[in-house]
Amino acid sequence: MPEKVIKDIRSINTRTQICAIIGNPVAHSLSPAIHNAAFAELDLDFVYVAFRVEDVASALAGMRAMENFRGMSVTIPHKVEVIKHVDVVEDVDRHIGSVNTVINDSGRLSGLGTDGPGALKALTDAGVEINGKTVLMLGAGGAARAIAFSLAKSADPRKIKILDIDAAMLAQLAADLAGGTDTVIASDTMTEKTLARAMASADIIIHCTPVGMHPKEGISIVPPALFRPGQVVFDIVYTPLETKLLADAKSKGLQVISGVDMFVNQAVLQFERFTGSEAPVEVMRKVVLEHLKA
Amino acid sequence: MPEKVIKDIRSINTRTQICAIIGNPVAHSLSPAIHNAAFAELDLDFVYVAFRVEDVASALAGMRAMENFRGMSVTIPHKVEVIKHVDVVEDVDRHIGSVNTVINDSGRLSGLGTDGPGALKALTDAGVEINGKTVLMLGAGGAARAIAFSLAKSADPRKIKILDIDAAMLAQLAADLAGGTDTVIASDTMTEKTLARAMASADIIIHCTPVGMHPKEGISIVPPALFRPGQVVFDIVYTPLETKLLADAKSKGLQVISGVDMFVNQAVLQFERFTGSEAPVEVMRKVVLEHLKA
Repeated sequence: MPEKVIKDIRSINTRTQICAIIGNPVAHSLSPAIHNAAFAELDLDFVYVAFRVEDVASALAGMRAMENFRGMSVTIPHKVEVIKHVDVVEDVDRHIGSVNTVINDSGRLSGLGTDGPGALKALTDAGVEINGKTVLMLGAGGAARAIAFSLAKSADPRKIKILDIDAAMLAQLAADLAGGTDTVIASDTMTEKTLARAMASADIIIHCTPVGMHPKEGISIVPPALFRPGQVVFDIVYTPLETKLLADAKSKGLQVISGVDMFVNQAVLQFERFTGSEAPVEVMRKVVLEHLKA
Repeated sequence: MPEKVIKDIRSINTRTQICAIIGNPVAHSLSPAIHNAAFAELDLDFVYVAFRVEDVASALAGMRAMENFRGMSVTIPHKVEVIKHVDVVEDVDRHIGSVNTVINDSGRLSGLGTDGPGALKALTDAGVEINGKTVLMLGAGGAARAIAFSLAKSADPRKIKILDIDAAMLAQLAADLAGGTDTVIASDTMTEKTLARAMASADIIIHCTPVGMHPKEGISIVPPALFRPGQVVFDIVYTPLETKLLADAKSKGLQVISGVDMFVNQAVLQFERFTGSEAPVEVMRKVVLEHLKA
């Protein structure tokens, strides 16, 4: 097979559409590498850059005014703020209270989240049945909110149990989920005891705290003795690629799902909204893995 | 010599700076082709796109908020409006009343014009001595304003004579030049008679009206009988590459300067402000000529 010809930057023209990540900082984002590789793979007339932004309102107003500025990925600390400046937000994202994607349709900006759908896709791609199952969420922060709402709205679990050490944040998420979805929600302050009890009845464990993330790798909040046969363990942390939580679960013979899958999926879902084309998932995953291993 | 390796779009990363042309319309702009070719030639980490813009204020606010959005070329109809939304404008550009370039230095926007300096450079690159000479400007519109101010401020002509059929616009430009510069300014409504008289004393003729421009090529406002030996004729029209005005002047043995030189120079001056690097002028000229001949 002849080698693929990738367009060089001289091909950029008056019709080229741009996408960008906004956040602060953005210097270490993988998004430009992932999306540009995917644009190149499909020979699409798009480029993806990064803008460090402090003034979100002006950045969004600028995007609205610039016709070829097609899409934005939004990262910390702007995921909540950006909702105020878009024209349309889907219901589920309004409940979650943050979005990570903005689409510009001729000046009409839509905000949406791909973290929750990306996590859900990671589970379903791995063949995990969620319908009727008990899901244990460890952590009640922004990512947990997005995932819990996506599961509750779209995957029909029997119950979602949430543990966190921050009682106020936990209570807020539990109340929002109970008000915004029909799923049975339970919550408890995280202690050794509540964790052990929750693990005893969980089918799917989703870890959404920063514990185990580089540079604090090598620790896990779940004592290996708590794992039970048949459980599925999903860690949204992806640095390192295999956290201690996943290594422990694997050593017990459990099915594990890496945060890389969610990370790739959220980019895939963004890409498909930006371009209307089916994303070259394996190319995108390869870029992520190459960067994470480097 | 090994073939030059040009970066493909997968090289775009979180540090890549973007420049863009804004205007309405922008679909036929050559600027992306010219600047991307120059970035590629020097292996600079920049890309250049085009944004059709109606809301100039928001586009400028957006640029200010986006850290890697380094430079803008501004075209019709926004060259006047954009001055209101930048933080710094040089004196000469304030007098001219329009700019075609915006530079973003960490949120501080500077507006400047490169049409006048580009025209001046076209003359001086061709070895034309302006100091002490009588310049005849045909036309008093935006381009004529920019060129007349640049000549008056920087080239020390003996006199600038301006003719136009629009008496009000002509009077305004003459008054602004007289107020803003020390050069002797004369002006007259353009008629067969005033043109003949002005041609009799002109050393350098600069044509700044749309007459002779594609699709109305093949006409010239200067009857060939009016040319005198030793005159230099500069036509800012560059479609076609050789206007009837220039063809007539050449057939009389006069030195002629094409609008292409000014067009390339204004881009060169923008490029150097965007990047801080010396522009690859011949590469840029080649792109322009290829597009104009296509």
